[in-house]
Amino acid sequence: MLGKIALEECWTIPEELSNNDPGKFVASGTGSRLTNELLDVHDMRLKQMDENGVDFMILSFVAPGCQGIPDKAKAEAQARLANDRIEAEVAKAPTRFAAFAALSMHDPAQAAEELRRCGEDGNGMLYFDQPEYDVFWKAAAELGAAVYMHPRPSNELIHKLMWEGRPWLDFSALGYADRLNMHILGIVTNGVLDRFPKLKILFGHMGEHIPYDLYRIDHKLDRGRFPNMPMRKDKLVRDYFGEQLFITTSGHFSTSALMFAIGEIGAHSIMFSIDYPFESIPNACVWWDDHVWPNINQHDYTNIGRNNVLKVLPRLTEEPHNLKPMTPRQCEDRF
Amino acid sequence: MLGKIALEECWTIPEELSNNDPGKFVASGTGSRLTNELLDVHDMRLKQMDENGVDFMILSFVAPGCQGIPDKAKAEAQARLANDRIEAEVAKAPTRFAAFAALSMHDPAQAAEELRRCGEDGNGMLYFDQPEYDVFWKAAAELGAAVYMHPRPSNELIHKLMWEGRPWLDFSALGYADRLNMHILGIVTNGVLDRFPKLKILFGHMGEHIPYDLYRIDHKLDRGRFPNMPMRKDKLVRDYFGEQLFITTSGHFSTSALMFAIGEIGAHSIMFSIDYPFESIPNACVWWDDHVWPNINQHDYTNIGRNNVLKVLPRLTEEPHNLKPMTPRQCEDRF
Amino acid sequence: MLGKIALEECWTIPEELSNNDPGKFVASGTGSRLTNELLDVHDMRLKQMDENGVDFMILSFVAPGCQGIPDKAKAEAQARLANDRIEAEVAKAPTRFAAFAALSMHDPAQAAEELRRCGEDGNGMLYFDQPEYDVFWKAAAELGAAVYMHPRPSNELIHKLMWEGRPWLDFSALGYADRLNMHILGIVTNGVLDRFPKLKILFGHMGEHIPYDLYRIDHKLDRGRFPNMPMRKDKLVRDYFGEQLFITTSGHFSTSALMFAIGEIGAHSIMFSIDYPFESIPNACVWWDDHVWPNINQHDYTNIGRNNVLKVLPRLTEEPHNLKPMTPRQCEDRF
Amino acid sequence: MLGKIALEECWTIPEELSNNDPGKFVASGTGSRLTNELLDVHDMRLKQMDENGVDFMILSFVAPGCQGIPDKAKAEAQARLANDRIEAEVAKAPTRFAAFAALSMHDPAQAAEELRRCGEDGNGMLYFDQPEYDVFWKAAAELGAAVYMHPRPSNELIHKLMWEGRPWLDFSALGYADRLNMHILGIVTNGVLDRFPKLKILFGHMGEHIPYDLYRIDHKLDRGRFPNMPMRKDKLVRDYFGEQLFITTSGHFSTSALMFAIGEIGAHSIMFSIDYPFESIPNACVWWDDHVWPNINQHDYTNIGRNNVLKVLPRLTEEPHNLKPMTPRQCEDRF
Repeated sequence: MLGKIALEECWTIPEELSNNDPGKFVASGTGSRLTNELLDVHDMRLKQMDENGVDFMILSFVAPGCQGIPDKAKAEAQARLANDRIEAEVAKAPTRFAAFAALSMHDPAQAAEELRRCGEDGNGMLYFDQPEYDVFWKAAAELGAAVYMHPRPSNELIHKLMWEGRPWLDFSALGYADRLNMHILGIVTNGVLDRFPKLKILFGHMGEHIPYDLYRIDHKLDRGRFPNMPMRKDKLVRDYFGEQLFITTSGHFSTSALMFAIGEIGAHSIMFSIDYPFESIPNACVWWDDHVWPNINQHDYTNIGRNNVLKVLPRLTEEPHNLKPMTPRQCEDRF
Repeated sequence: MLGKIALEECWTIPEELSNNDPGKFVASGTGSRLTNELLDVHDMRLKQMDENGVDFMILSFVAPGCQGIPDKAKAEAQARLANDRIEAEVAKAPTRFAAFAALSMHDPAQAAEELRRCGEDGNGMLYFDQPEYDVFWKAAAELGAAVYMHPRPSNELIHKLMWEGRPWLDFSALGYADRLNMHILGIVTNGVLDRFPKLKILFGHMGEHIPYDLYRIDHKLDRGRFPNMPMRKDKLVRDYFGEQLFITTSGHFSTSALMFAIGEIGAHSIMFSIDYPFESIPNACVWWDDHVWPNINQHDYTNIGRNNVLKVLPRLTEEPHNLKPMTPRQCEDRF
Repeated sequence: MLGKIALEECWTIPEELSNNDPGKFVASGTGSRLTNELLDVHDMRLKQMDENGVDFMILSFVAPGCQGIPDKAKAEAQARLANDRIEAEVAKAPTRFAAFAALSMHDPAQAAEELRRCGEDGNGMLYFDQPEYDVFWKAAAELGAAVYMHPRPSNELIHKLMWEGRPWLDFSALGYADRLNMHILGIVTNGVLDRFPKLKILFGHMGEHIPYDLYRIDHKLDRGRFPNMPMRKDKLVRDYFGEQLFITTSGHFSTSALMFAIGEIGAHSIMFSIDYPFESIPNACVWWDDHVWPNINQHDYTNIGRNNVLKVLPRLTEEPHNLKPMTPRQCEDRF
Repeated sequence: MLGKIALEECWTIPEELSNNDPGKFVASGTGSRLTNELLDVHDMRLKQMDENGVDFMILSFVAPGCQGIPDKAKAEAQARLANDRIEAEVAKAPTRFAAFAALSMHDPAQAAEELRRCGEDGNGMLYFDQPEYDVFWKAAAELGAAVYMHPRPSNELIHKLMWEGRPWLDFSALGYADRLNMHILGIVTNGVLDRFPKLKILFGHMGEHIPYDLYRIDHKLDRGRFPNMPMRKDKLVRDYFGEQLFITTSGHFSTSALMFAIGEIGAHSIMFSIDYPFESIPNACVWWDDHVWPNINQHDYTNIGRNNVLKVLPRLTEEPHNLKPMTPRQCEDRF
């Protein structure tokens, strides 16, 4: 498929490497490859995009990013630096790249301010569903920003308590999803989406388990037992999908899971993504181009592959990105 | 459907109530109903089974059971008491009931011994995938026992660290699944199933999220990064389903999720269950009888509803239970 | 679901009964019930619509209608009579009913003229994919009319040649679909949709087998062997769905088939319908309200149940029908 | 996947070419390729089987075969010749090939006798669901033979009446399925399977549309209107799948259609096939090896790819073919 847009794609800056060495998350000896891919925007990355029909990428500062820096002032400075740096990179090729702003999130008011300064969509890592963070969510909603929730490693205490003896499960195989689904549902059930009805939350990996358990989640959210749960009493978690909750395919290249998700939450709630460089661009695109097609119809296929994100993040249709919806015919490379 | 067998069905004894008051897990004012349903075997429970085409139930001592008692000796005594008591109940109607043995699990060797004493299938709550528990798994495998993994509430520390501010998510809506999928995958990836190839693990709620993420789990279990992960290097987690891993429908009455699971792990890996009294017998059976049928074919339908468990737990086909497989025709109430 | 719109719903006039006795298509002794239901618009029919959340019906003159009258002049007169009569019925309750025009189709030019006279969507029974019928298709396209293709009984010769010895298969169980899929694909492959790109074709029964075989149909339409097949060489049959081909659920109340069709041709290509009085309004609505929900997401559910037809037949949004799209929330009767 | 077995695979003899020139069914200029592939067994065919993991093929005499010869005596002689010839070919490599017997079917008693003479599974093309053919079905049932129903071109009269103006639809794109589903359902509804409960009917192309419409077929087989329909009154068409009706994937390489069929009729009712040489061996096998996997679980995958046919045609497990079931692990080429 031509014209694909991908939106959970990571990058980093040299100043971040000492704080967060990507090499520790991959097999021994492969860290430098990953580091190089994270630092690069316009070289190998763009070449692979061209070769694989990826028209556009929205970049995110690699997790844990500023949220992994304990000192508040340093974290905020790092966020500003990252945002300035990526703005410059995007400016070199705005028809191929945009970026989610990186946010330190130590201080909700400052995070809100940085989000405003960037005038842009906020980058996730927000594990905070409590009222004091409303100042941040308010700013995001006012900006029409969508917040992309990235998983991040557990802290030392949680790792020790829960994952010792099975550390390989603490990351992308399972722990990321287990933690992120808790935080997303925390945001929903604490009423954040109700207080800010223009707020949109995006998350990857085909929904971090949530679509599969949607019936059970709604069935078991026990308002009798927890009468003070803040979420609107006349809504189900299911109701937020396609309106305020959206998922991407990043890192879960399963056609059967995608087909299930289309039925359960609707094709308009789903967007293609890769999770580069933690996933390979060609692998993701071979899956999308050769395996997904033609197991789903061309309209949903084109919308998931490209058009949906232009509705979720309408600023992408304006200058300088100027992305336009494409028809199934325009996207098909069989012509 | 006539002849249904259900296998994640709870009961308790009066002596357990002070240790584990079921009332605290339900809406205020409804605890006594739940308590009565847990204590009852042959009265309301059997009546509802008759009214809803449930031929047989395998009972489990309600979680956390003996595993919720900190004192090892008291826990072991409680397990013995529970197992003796349920044996007596089963003996009153062995063609309608069997029971999983309750196990304290504080001391793996003692748990193994109690499992042997009961000569029976072991009851789950086993969060122990480390080598010292091999003595227990060995006993289970030698007995041909299948171990049913029940979720249980998180302990106080975990609850405080992860679920404060969103306590409604810590239980059946999400936390049970998040914790249990970690423990099940811990058992698998730590090689327990490889060391005991006759061991079978059962779990409910349509697989505690695992079937939906199976592609990603196998894709991301990073042997390069964790070369010492004990699971056999020539197997995927996917490979254990239908041979050593089995799921039930308990508490997740979603036809679409069931249809997905049939494709992903195979109908022979799935068994009907209710999760009574945390779920209603009529609700579960209306779902199975009126909603699932005829969205899946009659052979898989009959096998999931009844026959599969007779292969997974072949002792049920012998005296005193003497359950036999039934054909789709024998199970259909349209005749 | 509140607000449902149904569009393959039949009616007739007393003058048609001698030509086409509905009683011959049903079990002996039940013909008078069917006849009464066909003749009625505002009494039993409307009452059942109210009781079952059906907001609106588009009526079609029952097949074979005018196309079953061999004499051309009589057929045309019958079509005019039927169209005048239904116009009067619709005028009594235009917020609840509209009608497809009945067309004799003996003379394509006259059929086109009658379609213009009715200023309205054309009623199907068009087995004519040859160039001489372009005058009709042209008129339909100019009017922005959608043509609903109804199955009809085979003629005597075909019945004798193919269905003797198995007459029960010649009707709604199989023969209707086998004949209609031939005619629909005849229209598509003869290039009618290419010559009239604004033309829309609607058909019922979950697509008359076509969605299930779409891969094979496109795979096997052998342009090497039939170089003169008129359909555009750069399109697949698949490409017309959602743009010029649309299906309804009439008479095929299978959730699994619906879920498959959503994947294969897209939710936007599908519209709810009943096929009253050959199907029961409550049966169809219990299926839609209780069985389909929540196996598909609420957005697709609401669109299929109501909103899609307002895009396919936009005239329904204007006076006197004045139908408006509804949100999932407005349609849900759980509020 | 290693070890695949395919069972709708065609061949022919030079003596048949004058009666039935395969070249007329393909694009001009490609007939000789097809002819060569039909005549060949041990050369190109076997080479491609080796290259693509096809362990075994069951060969069928290409349609219309003997049934296309109007003269009864000549047809019977041709059937005997074909059967003798293929027996000799199979004898050269019985661990790689078996054959369905070719039958002229002009005279049911003679066809039955030829079937007995071949001591073997009968080759389809049987459009005869009337009582006089019971002598044939009886013989097939007594032999434990499964009858594979192949589509064939329509005769001249039907072609002229129904397909003129759209001849490209009369063959594999649509007409084959429309005619074959009529004949299969004719056999079922005329009670042939009831009279011969050991009889098994096999058909290709993912079920010739029937699985998708199964709900509607059973819903609409109107016993009130046709009280003398011979099929057992206590059975549905659905009930015969997996017991007496089986389908193959030949020529319909759609993963979504396969996944639907698994749900609707059960994985045990489905067998892999290619339809060589009308389909390409590598294309079919790339679909099976790379696209189907891992969208269905490995047990169903292995059973459909190989093991199911050994239950449907158990003679294949004996000498000289001596085929054995394989485990998912044995079939997987990732080891």
